[in-house]
Amino acid sequence: MSVSNWTLPGGGRVQLAQEVPVALVYDGVAQAVMMASPGDLEDFALGFALSEGLIEAPAEITRHEIVRQEAGVELRSWLAAPAGARFAERRRATIGPVGCGLCGIEQLEQARRSLPRARPPAWQITPQQAHEAIDALRDQQPLQDETRAAHASAFWQPGRGIVALREDVGRHNALDKLIGALARAGIAGASGALVMTSRLSVDLVQKAAIYGIPVIAGPSAPTALAVTEAEAAGLTLIARAGRRLAIFTQPQEAIS
Amino acid sequence: MSVSNWTLPGGGRVQLAQEVPVALVYDGVAQAVMMASPGDLEDFALGFALSEGLIEAPAEITRHEIVRQEAGVELRSWLAAPAGARFAERRRATIGPVGCGLCGIEQLEQARRSLPRARPPAWQITPQQAHEAIDALRDQQPLQDETRAAHASAFWQPGRGIVALREDVGRHNALDKLIGALARAGIAGASGALVMTSRLSVDLVQKAAIYGIPVIAGPSAPTALAVTEAEAAGLTLIARAGRRLAIFTQPQEAIS
Repeated sequence: MSVSNWTLPGGGRVQLAQEVPVALVYDGVAQAVMMASPGDLEDFALGFALSEGLIEAPAEITRHEIVRQEAGVELRSWLAAPAGARFAERRRATIGPVGCGLCGIEQLEQARRSLPRARPPAWQITPQQAHEAIDALRDQQPLQDETRAAHASAFWQPGRGIVALREDVGRHNALDKLIGALARAGIAGASGALVMTSRLSVDLVQKAAIYGIPVIAGPSAPTALAVTEAEAAGLTLIARAGRRLAIFTQPQEAIS
Repeated sequence: MSVSNWTLPGGGRVQLAQEVPVALVYDGVAQAVMMASPGDLEDFALGFALSEGLIEAPAEITRHEIVRQEAGVELRSWLAAPAGARFAERRRATIGPVGCGLCGIEQLEQARRSLPRARPPAWQITPQQAHEAIDALRDQQPLQDETRAAHASAFWQPGRGIVALREDVGRHNALDKLIGALARAGIAGASGALVMTSRLSVDLVQKAAIYGIPVIAGPSAPTALAVTEAEAAGLTLIARAGRRLAIFTQPQEAIS
């Protein structure tokens, strides 16, 4: 497990969550360096590629390599030819000439992603069920139990409860690892709800929408942009309103 | 205040924290786009430039411009000639040729920043005082009170308590805004302690160290890397160990 021991100067030992720079490298190009828990790295490489739209299906990654360097971990993935060509094309389109500098407007527009509209699920989850799912998570978070410094991202299916869960010191990483784990197990996003222990910000809504997850639930208050993006993408969002969980968005077609 | 209203589908209204893409642009070059609360933006532009080492003193920024676009906010800052020249030089050194792709190793090494060693402070803060400072924050967080979705970053001085505080939906943004506010008020990092409501990860340690803040305290568990980097930089770190706050690092020379 991604845990280290530390001796306090005043005496006593504590368990700390490891936090390691992880470079996500696709076809030799580093897309991002994330500070992450150093476990479930293959899930991470796959889930990040899916949730960031580098690939559309798990089979588009042909090979992973995990290289532990002194400065951190390098996750190298290679893309199948069609995805690799799209990726190279996208890089040419987004990386401007170095000399002129990217302008802020161009960068701002990249922050807003165009999201697929979710299909209304054939099942429902109530705030009470979301509450129970969040409670059920608590027994399945060994990293959090040891360190009190980890988020969890879980997938809930109607009638089954939590079917997959990943932990990480970073919220987005926990979700990317979960998406990678679901993809490797062949579990479609449409079949369940995302349950996050962390607050619900817009990037989590974007990643869930891209993997086709129609419902997001969490015990924290969402941001305004998370709510409006969930509404626009047709996602149901269940989150904290005052002291209880409430439905923030529920697209018309999903209610009937 | 950075708040929006939302009407729940089931009835009832809630206040949500706004979350807006903010592009940080220096001399026409976008350094980063952050999802942030849209307040205290001048503090943000200045604090980010200081904590990321783009400038060494507030006077090195000659002008700010806040441009509200449809897609978000562009924070444009212009650097004084010496800082501008250093910045341009650094860009040339770090941005590799587009054709070959940046390698993961190079990117990983950039994640570790070389930190100045903190001078031992002429004052001390105990876990009990840190606890009181965290409690005192609670009365000074209007955005959090309204939305339950904001972190706070505050500066505590011995004998005075909390002298500055900034809130944001993002932890790092709250700290950057605080550093900007301190710099504008001419308050040196060495004169007090950073108190964060959020968990303590390595990037917060790095930003505090670069502004010369010798003590960091927070109610959450730190990550392993946050602790080892604080130790290496000579910072005192007070954080959650089990059910109480404890001193995690306290460099030898500060104890006597």
